[in-house]
Amino acid sequence: MPVPETVPPPIDFYFDFSSPFGYLAAKRIDALAAGHGREVAWRPILLGAVFKTTGSRPVVEVPLKRDYARRDIERTARRFGVPFAWPSPFPYPAVAASRAFYWLGDRDAAQATDLARAVYDAAFGAGRDMSSAEAVADVAAGLGIDGAEVLAAVQEQAVKDRLRAEVDAAMAGGVFGSPYIVVDGEPFWGVDHLDQVDRWLETGGW
Amino acid sequence: MPVPETVPPPIDFYFDFSSPFGYLAAKRIDALAAGHGREVAWRPILLGAVFKTTGSRPVVEVPLKRDYARRDIERTARRFGVPFAWPSPFPYPAVAASRAFYWLGDRDAAQATDLARAVYDAAFGAGRDMSSAEAVADVAAGLGIDGAEVLAAVQEQAVKDRLRAEVDAAMAGGVFGSPYIVVDGEPFWGVDHLDQVDRWLETGGW
Repeated sequence: MPVPETVPPPIDFYFDFSSPFGYLAAKRIDALAAGHGREVAWRPILLGAVFKTTGSRPVVEVPLKRDYARRDIERTARRFGVPFAWPSPFPYPAVAASRAFYWLGDRDAAQATDLARAVYDAAFGAGRDMSSAEAVADVAAGLGIDGAEVLAAVQEQAVKDRLRAEVDAAMAGGVFGSPYIVVDGEPFWGVDHLDQVDRWLETGGW
Repeated sequence: MPVPETVPPPIDFYFDFSSPFGYLAAKRIDALAAGHGREVAWRPILLGAVFKTTGSRPVVEVPLKRDYARRDIERTARRFGVPFAWPSPFPYPAVAASRAFYWLGDRDAAQATDLARAVYDAAFGAGRDMSSAEAVADVAAGLGIDGAEVLAAVQEQAVKDRLRAEVDAAMAGGVFGSPYIVVDGEPFWGVDHLDQVDRWLETGGW
């Protein structure tokens, strides 16, 4: 259905629920977009699938970079003034949270975004292990979503396929990291690019 | 020799002459430091040696990231308002320029920094191939440095050993990328962290 010309499209916010940089961006992206009259389409992906293609590893697993990355993440959280704690295990498999997101989004996009925020806050705001379906269902229940429904949904083949299709589509579109933000076709990778995202929204490019 | 307490130590600016992100940082780092009454110790390294340890590759060689990286670099150059051109070949071996820098620095640190700026401007400002000793000697000659001396120096074993020792020392200190900036013991990686460097110099931390 075509949208009226007066409503600009949302900006795309790709992230992995296991990515601390994604969490940091998540704490700012909505307010940043709202400052320019724009909404945000939250789009969880699985970096594990991406890394198979790029041959990369999570930065926190790379010698030399590992210690720096942890320091940088904690320092940036302090700079942003947001709570931060490392979940254990880390990185954690974010399949359950990602499936729950897309399942929920098909019936209520706003509620799915609320779930995404709550999962991120539990994982990196409070350091909670969010790898299991049970943990995701519990957080969902806190938002008034039926936890038993969540547990059933994340085992459905159609939901599994849906997540896989979303990740494949993101990779086909060039997404390779978290956060990865697309503004009117222009891609920005990394929480350190939020200032460029802000300026691009303001100016339409440079 | 101890320095007087009134003179703060320089900030350390590690970079690879073949790194476009290093070039972009180089265009801002001196003015940024000067704004806080600080000087900059320029320290060329060879990322090739680092990548052997981290198992990384230059971002411009990684599938999916490659196209983004080129776009990001050109976009950031426009944002900074600095000239940018890709040298060919790219990446290029920066051994000659790095050796010349440390050789020259032992007799005139300011002139070595001038050479570093000139090499970067030739490579990424003008797209010139700076991989050969002859190209480095030619740029040096433009600064009033004897080109024949440069050509001889970069073949000296002591100069080769000096560069290797500098790279080893940098890696031992945790340096793994370009640009990599250390302010009073605090490390910052990436041209996107210049705003954090600026704030750290202003506040002494957060």
